[in-house]
Amino acid sequence: MTAVEVGMQIDLDNLPALSLGCTVFAGGGGGDPRIGELMAMEAIHRLGPVEVLPLEALDDDDLIMPCGMIGAPTVMVEKIPNGAEGRVIREAYEGRFGRHVAAVMPFEMGGINGVLPVAWAAYAGLPLLDADFMGRAFPELQMLTPHLYGMSGSPAVITDERLQTIVFNTRDNIWLERLVRNCVATLGGSACGGLYPMTAGAARRPAITGTVTRAIRMGEAIRRGGEDPLSAIGQVAPLTRLGQGKVVDIERRTSGGFVRGSALVEGLAADKGRLFRLEFQNENLVVLEDGEPLATVPDIITLLDLHTGHGIVTEGIRYGQRIEIVAFPSPEVWTSPEGLSAVGPRAFGYDFDYVAVGVRHG
Amino acid sequence: MTAVEVGMQIDLDNLPALSLGCTVFAGGGGGDPRIGELMAMEAIHRLGPVEVLPLEALDDDDLIMPCGMIGAPTVMVEKIPNGAEGRVIREAYEGRFGRHVAAVMPFEMGGINGVLPVAWAAYAGLPLLDADFMGRAFPELQMLTPHLYGMSGSPAVITDERLQTIVFNTRDNIWLERLVRNCVATLGGSACGGLYPMTAGAARRPAITGTVTRAIRMGEAIRRGGEDPLSAIGQVAPLTRLGQGKVVDIERRTSGGFVRGSALVEGLAADKGRLFRLEFQNENLVVLEDGEPLATVPDIITLLDLHTGHGIVTEGIRYGQRIEIVAFPSPEVWTSPEGLSAVGPRAFGYDFDYVAVGVRHG
Repeated sequence: MTAVEVGMQIDLDNLPALSLGCTVFAGGGGGDPRIGELMAMEAIHRLGPVEVLPLEALDDDDLIMPCGMIGAPTVMVEKIPNGAEGRVIREAYEGRFGRHVAAVMPFEMGGINGVLPVAWAAYAGLPLLDADFMGRAFPELQMLTPHLYGMSGSPAVITDERLQTIVFNTRDNIWLERLVRNCVATLGGSACGGLYPMTAGAARRPAITGTVTRAIRMGEAIRRGGEDPLSAIGQVAPLTRLGQGKVVDIERRTSGGFVRGSALVEGLAADKGRLFRLEFQNENLVVLEDGEPLATVPDIITLLDLHTGHGIVTEGIRYGQRIEIVAFPSPEVWTSPEGLSAVGPRAFGYDFDYVAVGVRHG
Repeated sequence: MTAVEVGMQIDLDNLPALSLGCTVFAGGGGGDPRIGELMAMEAIHRLGPVEVLPLEALDDDDLIMPCGMIGAPTVMVEKIPNGAEGRVIREAYEGRFGRHVAAVMPFEMGGINGVLPVAWAAYAGLPLLDADFMGRAFPELQMLTPHLYGMSGSPAVITDERLQTIVFNTRDNIWLERLVRNCVATLGGSACGGLYPMTAGAARRPAITGTVTRAIRMGEAIRRGGEDPLSAIGQVAPLTRLGQGKVVDIERRTSGGFVRGSALVEGLAADKGRLFRLEFQNENLVVLEDGEPLATVPDIITLLDLHTGHGIVTEGIRYGQRIEIVAFPSPEVWTSPEGLSAVGPRAFGYDFDYVAVGVRHG
């Protein structure tokens, strides 16, 4: 997406910016990054900064470990990871493949999953790849780019705070989603996992590159943005404003390893008199007005705090919040026919097609 | 339990006797052995008889593979195994432990699980151990003798007819039961699995020996028994007759990977006027009369067809069947305080204690 910044590190200075950037690019999902940020802070404090490596810096044969948390963000914020999950996942893969992991990679770039792998990389003494397999956050395990290229998410490893492990080898990624989701629910609603392990050579096609450094730049821009965070955000990524308003209703339930729900937003200022309905499954899926979609997955729909510009995760939406509803264009790979069939509105049960924000708005 | 018959084989002649004996010792559970019998028949037909080996014949270091089907017997009879599950489980263990499996062992001696491992042993060219870890059939994964000795059921491997594999390493056997049961339900209600893998040396204490040859002897006795199968059965194992009658009501539901239900039996002949209530969870758990337990787990409660002496599995109970309700004493290990806490009536939610059939009846 963007040129790689060679020689970059994640340290105690720019970690909060990464965390902040993750709230914007998550599309409301991936869980509140605060816990991941604290765990990464502790790891960096003890072991030093984490090197951020462009995918090109790895040899074709190098093994990469895409990883993160899986489950309902509402649960993740209360069911704190043990800290050793990254090591357990790495050991499972190293035992399985008979060689060392060369780099850690967030499987999605958003929420807690943009920062927790930083902690795991620090503890392992490994670099973090400047890439992920979503270019945002999505709720299901077949919603990663390698799936579009017919690549398998197996062997997948999940582990919980008791460091129990479950290793899956499934026939396809839909079965993987079904089985992992069920185990995660049995484990209490969230767990840590490794998915789609592959060599750097195999990752070159599906990887969405530059997403770690982009999130850091986004966070830094918001912190510098002062009174006008929206302009600062718009300078890092093309932003479409969908409407400004106040949250007047929020409905949310955690079931089957997901958090699903909706919010009503009453327009304020220039948008007075408008009523927006936001629907989510871990991530924000669609924004509707008078029953018509204003924006849909896979575009990244984010609620920004009107004053700070911080992204609001779906489990953090509260009555009375003053927010700006914005959208960023989806990573290109998701807007192909195959991409939309995996993550477009119809993949989530909606009876309408993808509405590209750049086309209808902005 | 009984002296081991050295040099015994399972061939096309005595396989039906094994299958028949399994219906008697299953306590109603373990699934109708017919499918396992057909699979073993095919394997023996192609590859020759399976050697039955006493545990003493193995070296302490030899790796044994306890295996069978897991799930609801109602589902097992319709969701036919692929045939290659035994190989997949064996390969998973051999990869994990870095050495060959020396012998296959049924983890429970009852129903399909007494005969399906015969097929797997034939395909692998391995002997079948004359032992199991239950001495009957039980519905849950912590209800195996090694659990009483503090031994772990992990790593456990499950696989389905699509040959997907899931490998579990859990903190304890209760977590193993919970996670495996959930995956089995997700896989459609039944799957094949390996549990409590261990060396022959480790198995010497928990193994209940002689159970394969005892089931064969039981089946042969019933086939020879002619007009009086009950006497023939009583000559192989001490049998307590609880009552004779006709099934007048049967209620059965399959949920969460189990089949649960109850049957009402109206007394006939000498038992005319009596009413028995049988309750089961895969296996028969208790027989009640006027609200009082006549027999309970871990004693082996079996419904025998009044005319043939064949055991009736819980999913095979039908309105109008003429049956004899009998019980055999539990393997001794289960009647210790630890044993009863794992598999006694209270472990299944009943508010009364174990009633030993030998004490109250017979």
